Amino acid sequence: MHKPMSQPSPCPTIIEINEVAPRDGLQIEARFVPTEEKIRWIDALSSTGLRRIEATSFTSPKAIPNLRDAADVVTGIQRRKGVDITVLVPNVKGTERALACQVDEINLVMSASNSHGLANLRMTPEQSLEQFAVILDVSKDSGVFINASLSTAFGCPFEGDVPEARVLELVEKLIGLGIQGVTLCDTTGMANPAQVKSLCEAVLERWPDTPFTLHFHNTRGMGLANALAAWQAGIIRFDASLGGLGGCPFAPGQRAMCTEDLVHMFEAMGVDTGVDLDALLEVAATLPDLIGHDVPGQVVKAGKSTRRYAMPVRES
Amino acid sequence: MHKPMSQPSPCPTIIEINEVAPRDGLQIEARFVPTEEKIRWIDALSSTGLRRIEATSFTSPKAIPNLRDAADVVTGIQRRKGVDITVLVPNVKGTERALACQVDEINLVMSASNSHGLANLRMTPEQSLEQFAVILDVSKDSGVFINASLSTAFGCPFEGDVPEARVLELVEKLIGLGIQGVTLCDTTGMANPAQVKSLCEAVLERWPDTPFTLHFHNTRGMGLANALAAWQAGIIRFDASLGGLGGCPFAPGQRAMCTEDLVHMFEAMGVDTGVDLDALLEVAATLPDLIGHDVPGQVVKAGKSTRRYAMPVRES
Repeated sequence: MHKPMSQPSPCPTIIEINEVAPRDGLQIEARFVPTEEKIRWIDALSSTGLRRIEATSFTSPKAIPNLRDAADVVTGIQRRKGVDITVLVPNVKGTERALACQVDEINLVMSASNSHGLANLRMTPEQSLEQFAVILDVSKDSGVFINASLSTAFGCPFEGDVPEARVLELVEKLIGLGIQGVTLCDTTGMANPAQVKSLCEAVLERWPDTPFTLHFHNTRGMGLANALAAWQAGIIRFDASLGGLGGCPFAPGQRAMCTEDLVHMFEAMGVDTGVDLDALLEVAATLPDLIGHDVPGQVVKAGKSTRRYAMPVRES
Repeated sequence: MHKPMSQPSPCPTIIEINEVAPRDGLQIEARFVPTEEKIRWIDALSSTGLRRIEATSFTSPKAIPNLRDAADVVTGIQRRKGVDITVLVPNVKGTERALACQVDEINLVMSASNSHGLANLRMTPEQSLEQFAVILDVSKDSGVFINASLSTAFGCPFEGDVPEARVLELVEKLIGLGIQGVTLCDTTGMANPAQVKSLCEAVLERWPDTPFTLHFHNTRGMGLANALAAWQAGIIRFDASLGGLGGCPFAPGQRAMCTEDLVHMFEAMGVDTGVDLDALLEVAATLPDLIGHDVPGQVVKAGKSTRRYAMPVRES
């Protein structure tokens, strides 16, 4: 991962953030956030320069009661130029509901490991791929961008290792089906920077024209280190969740990748995220009130690294 | 920071950890940890494969009452082959006390910025350097390794930016005086990976024979990302604090770099830290009882990334 000093750096000068807290964060919250509050919050987020917002999930209200207002949210939010609204859909019915709401992008989800697929979606990877083919057929005239998120791409909390060759095989099948973008997900925070470097280099080399997004968690403190490794490999698209809200229902102690901490690091490094960090931090500061509890995001508490303190008054 | 795939990686295959919690962590704790408990704890730490332990500080008991038992701690702990015992000393008197206890290494401390030096040590950098010359003279026949920690090397919480040229100027003066090792400290968690890469490459290029140690904090979530960037530049020595215990009295909301999280990341990447991670995690798990409160370390709570969960039982 080391670049000799004499070489020009191929590290990207810009990155793009896909804010997933309204979907990935809210879905496992104890309390239902009222629709009007969700809309105000997403509108505030979409004014900060984020490139994409995963606004909700068109899933069964029984499965995820917190997101039962998906259509009302998507039709209620302001649509801004330059901010794509993406939604997660679990099946054909969800796809039809999402398309009716004029979303910019649909995000499908499958697991790279059998047991996580069965636990989370009741489908093996192969069953998910079969379903994706139907969804692609249903959506083919819509002009909507179809992305697929590949869970457990860096390891499965039930099975352990997921071989890189298996991940590449599934990415190849996704792209072969007609999926336009792929998100590689470290679903429970198992990835390490060496593994990230290897997989990111492999996919960028094999599919240089496919937009890949990386979705990290910060469960074991490696979230920003993994994002750094992905960026060094040439990745420019990242999922992140405001405040670090979210996790995985099957693996307690999870922490999502915090959007404002990610933006703060890359901006400090001189990488253009497109985001107004101060505006984002203002929205992040409202999050504990919105959801009724503290969140793990650190920059909101510590202040930006440019923060200055007053000199202490010494006693003598 | 990107390494083209065809190049051999110059990233180090081993790293060494200097455990600083007994000094840097305990010094600002509210309660005094009894001497026997400190000794048991340090003995447990020194059996895990850590390369160095900063066991205490030979400072004024009035300034840091928690470490008033410095001599009893250093003479009470087991001395193991391969584990160097280092202590912080603030002045000539502390040096004489430390030398009387047969320490392996003395760690001096100064700031790279005037205002932090005055706030923390009541000395400008130049005054610290003058004092170091006297300390080097006092210790010159002892055979003890003399290290200097340079605080605020990546920014000052009072002044803001500390130019890299100023840091290099001070490192040059330290090495010119006869200081044998230098620790570059991100005292309040202001560093970012681009800055770390730049400074680490600069010092390793100019002084390839000087052992440099990097001391990061995790205040803004960048601790492991900064350690990764330093390692990519060729750094192999890191300070870290068990549980992430510690901070800076002048900048609230601080988090130290957590030893077990650092070891976990590098071991997951295949880098040999010399540390038995399971043994270290066992000691880390005892820390909340020792100090009477929770600590920010994440791997103790989440488990290692190889942890496996039982498949959930679905209701239908």
